[in-house]
Amino acid sequence: MEQINRVVGDEEKERDVGVEMKRKVRYTDLFIRLIALILSLAAAIILGLDKQTKVVPITLVSTLPPIKVLATAKYHYLSAFTYFVVANAIACSYGAVSLVLTLANKGSKNGGLAKAIIMLDLIMVAVLASAIGAAAAVGHIGHQGNKHVRWNKVCNVFGRFCNQVIVAVGVSLLGLLLFIFLVMLAVLNVHKKH
Amino acid sequence: MEQINRVVGDEEKERDVGVEMKRKVRYTDLFIRLIALILSLAAAIILGLDKQTKVVPITLVSTLPPIKVLATAKYHYLSAFTYFVVANAIACSYGAVSLVLTLANKGSKNGGLAKAIIMLDLIMVAVLASAIGAAAAVGHIGHQGNKHVRWNKVCNVFGRFCNQVIVAVGVSLLGLLLFIFLVMLAVLNVHKKH
Repeated sequence: MEQINRVVGDEEKERDVGVEMKRKVRYTDLFIRLIALILSLAAAIILGLDKQTKVVPITLVSTLPPIKVLATAKYHYLSAFTYFVVANAIACSYGAVSLVLTLANKGSKNGGLAKAIIMLDLIMVAVLASAIGAAAAVGHIGHQGNKHVRWNKVCNVFGRFCNQVIVAVGVSLLGLLLFIFLVMLAVLNVHKKH
Repeated sequence: MEQINRVVGDEEKERDVGVEMKRKVRYTDLFIRLIALILSLAAAIILGLDKQTKVVPITLVSTLPPIKVLATAKYHYLSAFTYFVVANAIACSYGAVSLVLTLANKGSKNGGLAKAIIMLDLIMVAVLASAIGAAAAVGHIGHQGNKHVRWNKVCNVFGRFCNQVIVAVGVSLLGLLLFIFLVMLAVLNVHKKH
């Protein structure tokens, strides 16, 4: 009888540890999701509001003095930056929706929903990574220029604009790492739970 | 006694279905991994061997006739394309290694290895997606040009080179989708197995 009690006690303890573990994982998931959401929002806003206007001298005829023209740099002048802002806005909106769903889902009662969230987290990883790649590639050309295709650098003129692009890409990269972490956490948690 | 036999029989049948299911998932994983590996290799080769030489007329002084110059387009003239080739080469090499490890791992005896492979598949998704984003963004500017930053299109001159870039990006995108599918399969399989 005593032995049976001990076994039952052990089982209960194990179950308690399991529940405690599950709760911890759930809180970690919610916290990471919130930060990822905020970082994506910040990246979208930082590049979305990025604008710089400057007086640029343009030489039309080499024998005449250059004409001064007002030129503006905005994110939507380059498709890659537009894609970056849209992708981060999507990641942020999805982050908010998935946060609410995870909160409402309380534990793993609804396996289908939990699985769907992992899948969508994974899609977000791909979307964010491609957006970061696109923005970084165009930003790199803007910074260094490319003599082979004769694309001149523009960051020597629009320095502040370029710096803001770098910050946005960095912030979005942190968001991407958190989304990757969310998928990893889900995979490890699923492995452990059973 | 008969009832016990029936229960044992049902359990055995269930176990058989489980083993059969596991084998099917494993073969699907191996097959998808092989195709993903081949697609990444193809993408790296298609862009890596992409080269076009053309005679380009260049106007130095507007009053003189343009000078004809031999110009070559190669992937490593643009950092984004170099990154694309390297990323696909990495994905292909990883695909080969993970294929061997999955073959050697026979089933899920070594949970740690299986988990590590899912994590690395996930990293490959992020790396491939960023490389595709970078190559597509630069290819888009090469195709359309951008008047805001005065980067002229180059695909009107190097048409064949650009078409080969599009094919490489498309092939790599298929590879990326398969890597995403591999992670999804692992997550769903893990959920089902237990």
